[in-house]
Amino acid sequence: MKALTPTEMAEFLSSQPLWCLADGKLVREWRFKDFVAAMEFVNRIATIAEDECHHPDIDIRYNRVRLGLVTHDAGGVTERDARLAARFSSEFPA
Amino acid sequence: MKALTPTEMAEFLSSQPLWCLADGKLVREWRFKDFVAAMEFVNRIATIAEDECHHPDIDIRYNRVRLGLVTHDAGGVTERDARLAARFSSEFPA
Repeated sequence: MKALTPTEMAEFLSSQPLWCLADGKLVREWRFKDFVAAMEFVNRIATIAEDECHHPDIDIRYNRVRLGLVTHDAGGVTERDARLAARFSSEFPA
Repeated sequence: MKALTPTEMAEFLSSQPLWCLADGKLVREWRFKDFVAAMEFVNRIATIAEDECHHPDIDIRYNRVRLGLVTHDAGGVTERDARLAARFSSEFPA
C-alpha cells in the first residue's frame, strides 16, 4: 500500500477537519468527562484496532486521548490509515 | 506536595533503574507480546490510577506502553509520583 499523495491527503483533511497531519501521522484528539470515560473510549478503539489488524498510536492524558495513524511499512499515511481515521470519527463523532 | 530535590530524585532513580527522567517526568516503558497483552496491562494500570486518584500519561505503541508520572500542580516529580512508579514496577516487574 502506497502513501497518500499530497492531493489525496488534502482531500482527506478537507473532508475530515478534526484530523490533522502531525509528525507524519494523521492525528485527532478526543476529550471526555474523566479518565474512566477516556479509558472506555480507548478500549472501544482497541477492539476496532484488533478487528482491523491496524493499531493507532494512543496517547492518554487523563481525560484526553490522542490517536495517531501511520503505516510505517509504507513510509507514511495510506488509504488504510485514512479509512480507519474516518471510521473512528464516524463511530465517535465528538 | 513539593517536587523531589535533585538528591531525592537521584536516590529514586538509583533504586529504580528502569525509570528515567525525561521531559520533566518519571518515565518507564514496558514491552509485551502483542497489542492485546499491552491493553491488558493498560487496563490494570488504569484501575490502580483510579484507586490512587493519580493518573500517569500512557502512550501505547502496539505492544509497547510508556508511562509518565509528574504532578503538574507541584511543577515537577513528587514523592507521590515516585511512590506510584515504585508500585507499578513492583506489580509489573518486566
